[in-house]
Amino acid sequence: MNETLLTVVGNVATEPETQVTATGVSVTRFRLATTTRRFDAERGAWTDGPTSFYTVRAWRALAGNIKDSVCLGEPLVVQGRLRIREEEVEGRRFVSAEIDAQSLGHDLSRGVARFTRTHSNPAAPRRQSGAPAPPQPTAVP
Amino acid sequence: MNETLLTVVGNVATEPETQVTATGVSVTRFRLATTTRRFDAERGAWTDGPTSFYTVRAWRALAGNIKDSVCLGEPLVVQGRLRIREEEVEGRRFVSAEIDAQSLGHDLSRGVARFTRTHSNPAAPRRQSGAPAPPQPTAVP
Amino acid sequence: MNETLLTVVGNVATEPETQVTATGVSVTRFRLATTTRRFDAERGAWTDGPTSFYTVRAWRALAGNIKDSVCLGEPLVVQGRLRIREEEVEGRRFVSAEIDAQSLGHDLSRGVARFTRTHSNPAAPRRQSGAPAPPQPTAVP
Amino acid sequence: MNETLLTVVGNVATEPETQVTATGVSVTRFRLATTTRRFDAERGAWTDGPTSFYTVRAWRALAGNIKDSVCLGEPLVVQGRLRIREEEVEGRRFVSAEIDAQSLGHDLSRGVARFTRTHSNPAAPRRQSGAPAPPQPTAVP
Repeated sequence: MNETLLTVVGNVATEPETQVTATGVSVTRFRLATTTRRFDAERGAWTDGPTSFYTVRAWRALAGNIKDSVCLGEPLVVQGRLRIREEEVEGRRFVSAEIDAQSLGHDLSRGVARFTRTHSNPAAPRRQSGAPAPPQPTAVP
Repeated sequence: MNETLLTVVGNVATEPETQVTATGVSVTRFRLATTTRRFDAERGAWTDGPTSFYTVRAWRALAGNIKDSVCLGEPLVVQGRLRIREEEVEGRRFVSAEIDAQSLGHDLSRGVARFTRTHSNPAAPRRQSGAPAPPQPTAVP
Repeated sequence: MNETLLTVVGNVATEPETQVTATGVSVTRFRLATTTRRFDAERGAWTDGPTSFYTVRAWRALAGNIKDSVCLGEPLVVQGRLRIREEEVEGRRFVSAEIDAQSLGHDLSRGVARFTRTHSNPAAPRRQSGAPAPPQPTAVP
Repeated sequence: MNETLLTVVGNVATEPETQVTATGVSVTRFRLATTTRRFDAERGAWTDGPTSFYTVRAWRALAGNIKDSVCLGEPLVVQGRLRIREEEVEGRRFVSAEIDAQSLGHDLSRGVARFTRTHSNPAAPRRQSGAPAPPQPTAVP
């Protein structure tokens, strides 16, 4: 409840790093940078706005697949839960914006990708999403 | 203004089809299916909920890259603007949910991908955000 | 899992109607209309785009508070889970976009409001988040 | 482009303060706190997770209406553009999460509200969407 789900489109700003927790769970972390662009009517051109940085964390299968798929500088679409984290270390307060990623992928508005399904989910191998082949989209002329 | 931006995580339910408009713009369409899952406390297991279908449309570079990258059945993360479209054809009303995609990628929680940047935007190769200068400021086809 | 959360800013298009289910749960329904606006660079003016309609459903405390607060024509911000519902009635297929509202409020970019907290949640009056203990744990994967 | 739109459901954590910029534009600021809740399966109860704080800024009509409508402690639904802002002040780096609000309202899952439309936009009173014609097409303060 009260979860703040968001989607960020940006670029990988640090090489993803993968660790295994004491309980044996993989977690991968990296920084993601996103820069807004807006149309400057006076100049008649697009200009960059400020850049925001996020710390993205991913767990389990997603952590492993990021490790095998994502490199520094690549463009991503990242969906996950946002947390604004405040910590105090040696008397100083640190704030960071952290995304616990649920799903993410390379942004195909910026390039092409070749995808291979991994069988990391033996519990539901046949149709994880459960999406049946739909009837023809008759509602769409 | 008043745009309804959403992100859908689902599976490609029809083979993507690409066309070129009279003005020379590429557009790719496909159906996307997403099925919710929830934990059934009584049974102690996850069960599938209902499936929703969307018509996804993409334009220009994204249209071409989808054509070269995305196949029927693959899992995607899709971000775009939602429109609930009502049309009347031969006296019958048809409703569909249409997403004008801004960014989308293969969902790496489900597999691995190898990404190659396409150089469709030589004007802005150095920028951290790397966002291509869009051809029209209104950005709403 | 795979829930599609979205936020729609629009106007109440039908008078909200409240019912009580067989199990004693209040549910309120209404239609919500949202019209995009875009800047037409050629004409140098804003113009209306297409209008999308949603069926909004709300449950329990939210259902009752909508009944006591929301009228036809009022502007709202609605956050909830989207479902594209397909039904067949007498051999004809019907599609609708349905939002199960989690939170919603009058859009203060359009007017002013006077708010009064209702004490429907005596179990947790002190918490900063103040979120009522929801009756069903299954909603959080 | 590349804007990060999000919706946060939370409580007003500081009294809203309104100022007028040198160019005569009203801006209202306040802090918003949101606390996640999750179901603890072991304990069989809901527990609070961490709290995230945001700085919300609103402009023009929305700024004025917040000033006249919103008090410390009230629950809100806030939609806007997120920016993770980094600043260096006297050699120390400060990070904050800032939302430029587009629309916001009292969360009716928590109470009731009486709404009155303000007539700040006589140019467009008839439209279904009723969206005010915004003063600047770039729409990114």
